[in-house]
Amino acid sequence: MQLTGVASGPMLQSTYPDQVCSIARTLEVVGERWSLLVLRDALFGVRRFDEFRASLGIASNVLAARLDRLSGEGLLERRRYQTRPDRYEYLLTDKGRELTPVLLMLMTWGDRYYPNPGGPPRVAEHVGCGGELEHMLRCRRCGEQVGFGDLLMRPGPGLRS
Amino acid sequence: MQLTGVASGPMLQSTYPDQVCSIARTLEVVGERWSLLVLRDALFGVRRFDEFRASLGIASNVLAARLDRLSGEGLLERRRYQTRPDRYEYLLTDKGRELTPVLLMLMTWGDRYYPNPGGPPRVAEHVGCGGELEHMLRCRRCGEQVGFGDLLMRPGPGLRS
Repeated sequence: MQLTGVASGPMLQSTYPDQVCSIARTLEVVGERWSLLVLRDALFGVRRFDEFRASLGIASNVLAARLDRLSGEGLLERRRYQTRPDRYEYLLTDKGRELTPVLLMLMTWGDRYYPNPGGPPRVAEHVGCGGELEHMLRCRRCGEQVGFGDLLMRPGPGLRS
Repeated sequence: MQLTGVASGPMLQSTYPDQVCSIARTLEVVGERWSLLVLRDALFGVRRFDEFRASLGIASNVLAARLDRLSGEGLLERRRYQTRPDRYEYLLTDKGRELTPVLLMLMTWGDRYYPNPGGPPRVAEHVGCGGELEHMLRCRRCGEQVGFGDLLMRPGPGLRS
C-alpha cells in the first residue's frame, strides 16, 4: 500500500513509502517537523496564527503550511472569528485531541531522561482533584494493569507477507 | 535553554531551538525522520543492520546515522555479535523501551483514523492472556481513571516567564 494515498492535500513526497504500519501512517500526518508542537500548543489553548507564531518562533510560511495540513486532515478546525479582514482561529477537533496521550508520553519521557534544570515545564493534572496523571496499559479481556514486559506486538490481519 | 545541549553527538541544527518544553526536547532525540520507525522495529525484535535496512527500505547512510544517534543517546545498545569482520546488533535499552507507549498510541490513533483496508497490521496483546491492550490515564492522587476532558496541562516549576 502506498502511504501517499493517506494525505488529502498535495504532498511533494511520502515520508514513509511502502510501510504497512499504522505508526508510519500516523507519522505521515503528524511527523513533519513542528506538527506535533502545533498540536501541543492547541492543546495548551493557543488558537490564533500570531499566537502560534509567537509560541513556536517559526517562519510564517512553515506555520501556515502546518496549520493547513492539520486542518485539511481534520485535526484542527479552522473557524473565522473576524471579518474585514477575515481572520481565523484553529481549534482542536476530537481527532486531534486523541493524540493527547502521545504528547503526554513524549513529555513524561523527556522529563525523565532529559530533565529541565528548573523542573518540569508542564504538569498533567487531574481537573478538580489536582493529582498528577499517569499512563497505564490495561487488558481489555482480563482488566489487569499490564507492564511493558507483558506486551506483545503480534501481526494483525492487515500485515502483508 | 538551548536544546542543542541535549544531544551527545554533533548536530548540524537544533530542530526546535528555544522551546522550554519536554515534548520538544524529546522530539530533538526521536523526532528525526525514521527514528521512531527504527525504534518500532527494535520493539518488534529487529536487531541487525541489514534487517533494519530491509524492513525500512532506506539508504544505508541514513540508517547508520539514526542507529548512531539512538545508540549515542542510550535508546539502543550497540553490541558486537561477530568478529572478522566486526558486526554489531542493536538492542532496545530500558530508556528506549519506555517510548513503547508513544509508539502504541501512534498505532492506535492511526488504526482509528487511517484504517488499513485489510485490518490492523499489528495488534498489542497481553502476553499469556491474549487480550488486547488499551491505554488509560489514571490519577496518582485519587486513583480514578481520567478522560482527556479532565486533563489540564498546567505550568510546572520549569516554565520560563
